[in-house]
Amino acid sequence: MRTFEKIKKANDIRNLRPSEYEALAGQIREFLIAHVSRTGGHLASNLGVVELTMALHLFLDFPKDKLIWDVGHQCYVHKILTGRAQGFDKLRQYGGMSGFPKRRESNTDLFDSGHSSNSISEACGLVRARELSGGREKIVAVIGDGAMTGGLAYEGLNNAGQLKSNLILVLNDNEMSIAKNVGGMASYLGKIRTSTRYEDLKDDVANTLEKIPCFGEKLVRQIRRSKASLKQLMIPGMIFEEMNITYVGPIDGHNIQQMYEAFLAASRKNGTVLVHVITKKGKGYECAEHDPGQFHGVDAFDVETGKSLKEKQGDTYTDVFANTMNELAVKYRNLVAITAAMPDGTGLAEFKAKYPKRFFDVGIAEEHAVSFAAGLAAGGYHPVFAVYSTFLQRAYDQILHDVCLNHFAVTFAVDRAGIVGSDGETHQGIFDISYLTHIPGLVVMAPKNAVELKDMLEFCMTCPEPTAIRYPRGEAFKELTDFRAPIRFGECEWIRREGEVLFLAAGSMVKEAEEAARILDAQGIHVALVNLRFLSPLDARMLKDALSYPMVVTLEENVMRGGLGEEVAGKLLAGGYGGRFLPVALPNRFIEHGTQAELRKACGLDAESIAKLVRETMAGADMI
Amino acid sequence: MRTFEKIKKANDIRNLRPSEYEALAGQIREFLIAHVSRTGGHLASNLGVVELTMALHLFLDFPKDKLIWDVGHQCYVHKILTGRAQGFDKLRQYGGMSGFPKRRESNTDLFDSGHSSNSISEACGLVRARELSGGREKIVAVIGDGAMTGGLAYEGLNNAGQLKSNLILVLNDNEMSIAKNVGGMASYLGKIRTSTRYEDLKDDVANTLEKIPCFGEKLVRQIRRSKASLKQLMIPGMIFEEMNITYVGPIDGHNIQQMYEAFLAASRKNGTVLVHVITKKGKGYECAEHDPGQFHGVDAFDVETGKSLKEKQGDTYTDVFANTMNELAVKYRNLVAITAAMPDGTGLAEFKAKYPKRFFDVGIAEEHAVSFAAGLAAGGYHPVFAVYSTFLQRAYDQILHDVCLNHFAVTFAVDRAGIVGSDGETHQGIFDISYLTHIPGLVVMAPKNAVELKDMLEFCMTCPEPTAIRYPRGEAFKELTDFRAPIRFGECEWIRREGEVLFLAAGSMVKEAEEAARILDAQGIHVALVNLRFLSPLDARMLKDALSYPMVVTLEENVMRGGLGEEVAGKLLAGGYGGRFLPVALPNRFIEHGTQAELRKACGLDAESIAKLVRETMAGADMI
Repeated sequence: MRTFEKIKKANDIRNLRPSEYEALAGQIREFLIAHVSRTGGHLASNLGVVELTMALHLFLDFPKDKLIWDVGHQCYVHKILTGRAQGFDKLRQYGGMSGFPKRRESNTDLFDSGHSSNSISEACGLVRARELSGGREKIVAVIGDGAMTGGLAYEGLNNAGQLKSNLILVLNDNEMSIAKNVGGMASYLGKIRTSTRYEDLKDDVANTLEKIPCFGEKLVRQIRRSKASLKQLMIPGMIFEEMNITYVGPIDGHNIQQMYEAFLAASRKNGTVLVHVITKKGKGYECAEHDPGQFHGVDAFDVETGKSLKEKQGDTYTDVFANTMNELAVKYRNLVAITAAMPDGTGLAEFKAKYPKRFFDVGIAEEHAVSFAAGLAAGGYHPVFAVYSTFLQRAYDQILHDVCLNHFAVTFAVDRAGIVGSDGETHQGIFDISYLTHIPGLVVMAPKNAVELKDMLEFCMTCPEPTAIRYPRGEAFKELTDFRAPIRFGECEWIRREGEVLFLAAGSMVKEAEEAARILDAQGIHVALVNLRFLSPLDARMLKDALSYPMVVTLEENVMRGGLGEEVAGKLLAGGYGGRFLPVALPNRFIEHGTQAELRKACGLDAESIAKLVRETMAGADMI
Repeated sequence: MRTFEKIKKANDIRNLRPSEYEALAGQIREFLIAHVSRTGGHLASNLGVVELTMALHLFLDFPKDKLIWDVGHQCYVHKILTGRAQGFDKLRQYGGMSGFPKRRESNTDLFDSGHSSNSISEACGLVRARELSGGREKIVAVIGDGAMTGGLAYEGLNNAGQLKSNLILVLNDNEMSIAKNVGGMASYLGKIRTSTRYEDLKDDVANTLEKIPCFGEKLVRQIRRSKASLKQLMIPGMIFEEMNITYVGPIDGHNIQQMYEAFLAASRKNGTVLVHVITKKGKGYECAEHDPGQFHGVDAFDVETGKSLKEKQGDTYTDVFANTMNELAVKYRNLVAITAAMPDGTGLAEFKAKYPKRFFDVGIAEEHAVSFAAGLAAGGYHPVFAVYSTFLQRAYDQILHDVCLNHFAVTFAVDRAGIVGSDGETHQGIFDISYLTHIPGLVVMAPKNAVELKDMLEFCMTCPEPTAIRYPRGEAFKELTDFRAPIRFGECEWIRREGEVLFLAAGSMVKEAEEAARILDAQGIHVALVNLRFLSPLDARMLKDALSYPMVVTLEENVMRGGLGEEVAGKLLAGGYGGRFLPVALPNRFIEHGTQAELRKACGLDAESIAKLVRETMAGADMI
């Protein structure tokens, strides 16, 4: 029996002999490569934490003990070790296993997660709860060095330093977020990494000091004057130590025995202990070791060559954004670009190469990115912050307070707006219309197709107010190119004016609306179609015109609550509208993983479903 | 001529003789105490930075050089030194001078501000802009030790460490946010504060090392092994130094000469320099020195006694919340309370005294507060996070991702919801309905009066889902106590069913709606009235009933966009409603300072304005 097959449920690893560990690690890697190469998923990060996860599972007793994975894309090995290997056949597929921790899958998954840097704070909560209830369970949070660039992690550390009972923070240091890590903290960790080990050194030096009388006398006096402790002299991880967090490390993150011993030692201390573990992203699979960024999240690929098996699709909206940025940079010398640790995902890699001085990667720090953009704008530049819709949620307050209150011409390029697919609940960009359009002064747009994204980006460069453009993941829509009237502030675009039903469609929904219109047309129902273009402010003249249509349908890839449908309804109703109204939007709930097409269909956002719903509504079914 | 009168505009201080500085500092303090005691405002923090602000104004050349105040409540001295002393007669009054930096007041105010911890990031933006444009202006950000507990400040530091040209960060360390400061960073700064000065020490110790051969040989070898630099041995501010930020200090924040010299030296370095300045909050006014928390923000007070001149009002909503928390703590042993640096403002001070183990002050760290609450809930406790509406904006993502996605029974006690008054744009709580009610699974409530807040809080303790209660600043409404049906999930309360107009009122607006109804009744217009209670989810049965009213009016103290009026309109219109609709809400813009009554009236949220608007709408004016 292969060692791998002995793992049927949580804690089974604890029944293995130490001599079996290496074989298990190898088999887990084989399993991960074999499965992820078929299904796609997060690979490099999981290959990197095979031994770390094994050591944690040897150290912890589930479900009594508590283990938190920051972000959570690196939980695959944890899923295997808790008996979920079979789930990998349908990893990230509709109805199948999630690629992130999920409470409904296992009581060893404590938090559904997907965003970064919150694990220390959550762990602090678990520790305080344990202190109040008098429990004795171990509590461990694993956080990457990338996530450590997020301010929330620092807020967590600042509070973790006050804990009186044990908390173990494992700093999984692979020198990367998705891209190469940035900032002062990264350079600091780099200094530690390149140093030799220190544990024994501390005692050595203390002894040395005592043994040298003339030194002891004078230096100790100086040290006393400065109240610097001996600790200050020899311990790496001073940043942590100064915040009352015991630092242990650096430790080889591929040596199970060493990590196990470190965890055991750490668990004996009162208060918070940070165990600094060095791992190699992509470990054990040459292609991934060589290019861990490429193998962070992958589609199905050929194991031999590492090449993606995904059919080459046309340009994505991200590609269009990227190309446009490169063009605009020539024309607008005040254009600068910002990413929060995602130069590749957001398409800014080429801009970075071409205009290194005008490109800023701030790390996983969306809040800083936005406040920093406000500063750049105050200094006369026009920053474009390219960011996924779901991650921009972090900076809601900074958008409102730092940028919009000050009327700075900052542009938010909101990528992955709408359904994103296989990453699931935590990554869907389905709230941004609701959280952006109520911010005073923020101009929010959505393009119907590739060329309109380009036109809108250029419009932003001439607009004196803060602007945001939301566009979806995936291939850009290339049709309806006959409709290319200049972008004018607050003006929609009429695709067709004649019809008994008026479709008001936002961005990605113009395509579906057009298809639905064709279906309905074949059935004798004629549809007028507006491409909204501006989601905020809505076109007031168009809304007046809308009053004369017997039926108005709004279409948006965003939750219903706070969406455009409601705003349109408010305006129509206050305007005395008495016709039928059908708001098409996503339901007010979190949306699971699956392909974008599957999820849109399940939510009724595809052309067929829309056409059906329109017919039903015309037939008189009330929606309340 | 008094020295004070010589300051008529920015830079005038640079024409004074050094011998005049002390007199000016004294006269500024007199002026501040005399004025703030009449108008109310932020006092202790401004008394603390008199010399610091003077030193900065001596050092900088306005408007070329750039000075950023974190938060900004400590900008009064800056306003005086830039020729705005006259504005203090109408400080924080409707139409008068703001208590925070305001770009429209002066080109020496770079950012309208009021929230915390963003100044480092904004300064980084200004520095990058200067690097790109080849400017030579000085850039300085002043940030308090309280603001340093915010994660955004850390994200800023992490990026500031990468700057190649000069940035000066002044850490204004008074050991406080509004309350006593908390966390590992605070304890770290405490260690530095209590130490002697170090500047000369560094050289001293280096010399010492060189002079002691036997020491040098062995220790230097050890240090080499550890790659620790000599710097690591003697410099305080290691946390900053390790992040590539030069640390200078600690420096006496009431010694102008010393600060000026430090700024000058700091400005000669490339990269970021943090100048650590120790100030005394409330300096020069005994009452404020003695109780700086009390004198952080004050109403008019008697200078002799320090006693507030504000007439004692009835219990505020904050008082009701505070008392209820103390009661519930007895009944619900799993109740715990969290504040982000505002134990007094949120009313949790007594809870803290009574239940110290169940109370957590996390510092100015709203994001951590929410993620921490998720952890406490995962550990079996029911956290109540008491926080101002405007500051909760910081934690939008954590509410959505950490709490609601996981269905944790965490309660958000959202104080200062609606118009808050004299703090102005940055402190109004006018967005929370828009940013909270679209989050899936979050139950949002608003009480009509004092007793309903109490009932709702108890309801939260029995509700298995995340809950939020929004309630306004100021005296709690004590009437309509005959209406006290039990709080049931998702159910509204009908105050009156008969009428040709139906008012759907949220929280604070029930009072205004009731008054408006009485006015209209006297004019022969009869009004039915619903107290919504649940802003999310809205009562579906009530909305069905609403369809039969000839006119529906929604009333909420929140911006129109994303508010309840729109949701109601969407439901009504989809339900086939053909009557009149009038949404009463705040306009979609930032709202300036003034009294709550003035601002509500200006925005049409008072009973008179509502009644008038209803009459006009009935007369047929369209609202679109």
